[in-house]
Amino acid sequence: MSTRPVIGIFDSGFGGLTVMRSLLRLVPQADYIYLGDTARLPYGSKSRETIARYAVGSARFLEARGAELLVVACNTASALALDALQAEARIPVLGVIQPGASAAAAAAPGSGVLVLATEATVQSHAYARACAEHGLQAYEKACPLLVPLVEEGWTDHPVTEEVARLYLAEAFADARAAGISPTTILLGCTHYPLLQPLLERVLRTHFAGTPVRILDSAEATARVVAQQLAATAGLPAAQPQCSFYATDSVAKFERLGSRFLGQPIGQVQLIDLGG
Amino acid sequence: MSTRPVIGIFDSGFGGLTVMRSLLRLVPQADYIYLGDTARLPYGSKSRETIARYAVGSARFLEARGAELLVVACNTASALALDALQAEARIPVLGVIQPGASAAAAAAPGSGVLVLATEATVQSHAYARACAEHGLQAYEKACPLLVPLVEEGWTDHPVTEEVARLYLAEAFADARAAGISPTTILLGCTHYPLLQPLLERVLRTHFAGTPVRILDSAEATARVVAQQLAATAGLPAAQPQCSFYATDSVAKFERLGSRFLGQPIGQVQLIDLGG
Repeated sequence: MSTRPVIGIFDSGFGGLTVMRSLLRLVPQADYIYLGDTARLPYGSKSRETIARYAVGSARFLEARGAELLVVACNTASALALDALQAEARIPVLGVIQPGASAAAAAAPGSGVLVLATEATVQSHAYARACAEHGLQAYEKACPLLVPLVEEGWTDHPVTEEVARLYLAEAFADARAAGISPTTILLGCTHYPLLQPLLERVLRTHFAGTPVRILDSAEATARVVAQQLAATAGLPAAQPQCSFYATDSVAKFERLGSRFLGQPIGQVQLIDLGG
Repeated sequence: MSTRPVIGIFDSGFGGLTVMRSLLRLVPQADYIYLGDTARLPYGSKSRETIARYAVGSARFLEARGAELLVVACNTASALALDALQAEARIPVLGVIQPGASAAAAAAPGSGVLVLATEATVQSHAYARACAEHGLQAYEKACPLLVPLVEEGWTDHPVTEEVARLYLAEAFADARAAGISPTTILLGCTHYPLLQPLLERVLRTHFAGTPVRILDSAEATARVVAQQLAATAGLPAAQPQCSFYATDSVAKFERLGSRFLGQPIGQVQLIDLGG
């Protein structure tokens, strides 16, 4: 590409804005179209067929708007619908799970990984499979309270610390019982990067004997995109153009979105994808 | 009705099973059809038009299955779609908000009420309006973490106690700042009855000087149904026949449902309402 590439980012909500935040830092030579399928979130409670249908509809919208690369910034859709998307889309499609597993392997080859994720992502075992392909043993821990705690804004709150401590204690004990000694924690949910400072503090305070680094799939995915678009890295610097679309509840998107994106979010346009 | 009435119960998920639990106790002479629109939950993040469309579709399904009375056991749908449902349905439709407000007025006429509910229900101000119609001043407090805490099974957990303490402290302070001194707490979310023992303990421990009773809309709604069906109360006692339908994610419904219903839940049948 000799012109600025256009990257489409798709998520069930606004959580994928953490992926976009990393992309804006690592791939500033691109323009961005973000679609949050907020009318139909959460994907986590839905079947594979339903999620694939929703995801393909969203991909078509982003293609029609000019996206040349589709980033599925949704762990559930990456886990359950990446095959369907890659079969249906006419542009390259990248999920967040393979980059996360690959980054964990690069950081500590052959090590144990603790994957923190939503219940749906854990039940899919997509991270365990991706980690195994990279020679890593993964223990997957569902942390259903972390998303609502982040959305409540309690990213630096004693209650969240206590919940994180309880989840990590259970996870380390269960991982050890399964013969896995994690040296990497992989954040397998787009909301969790906002908790990274708190998680690091909890690890230092309560698990000092457990030397663990934290990686997140959002950052890892942005690095893969940066590599794929390396040929365009020399394009003249310009402020990326960013468009935001949602299928419902624009108010919450606009209210919480800037916290996830790490910068003010412009107007979010409401669209109807049916259903 | 001289035969056993058939009551249709509709919710966006399985939370409305707390309403059904109260109904089974107070109206055992009826049979029940429960529909959880799990494919499209949560309603809380969706627009009024979308919720009304979903709710009307669900009402039609329950009518077609023989329901003679429709209980909207979903605070969000009661707040945003009761008018549409009453206009479209051919059977009587009862929501949970009016009965809740009415019960609060009966318990303490002219008093202050603290309504605990989800963000969507609070934003609709449906409880404040219904309470005002009954001569009550209501302060509505959104408690977004309580649903995920209940679904995590932490209904008797120190973290939930601390979250409840924080929410109640904020709510009492904000209510007083608004000139309202609550003597009644109204649980305006179908998940919250499972927290009533914990909330009573938190009130005793941390708010001993605040004499407050807890009422819940689920119980209040069941009492209204019992009154409406009083003519059938003498029907021969028999075990109510109960059917359960969901539009997706039957597994979670079956796993968590029995806790909400207070008794084992039978098989949940998956149906497709489109969308």
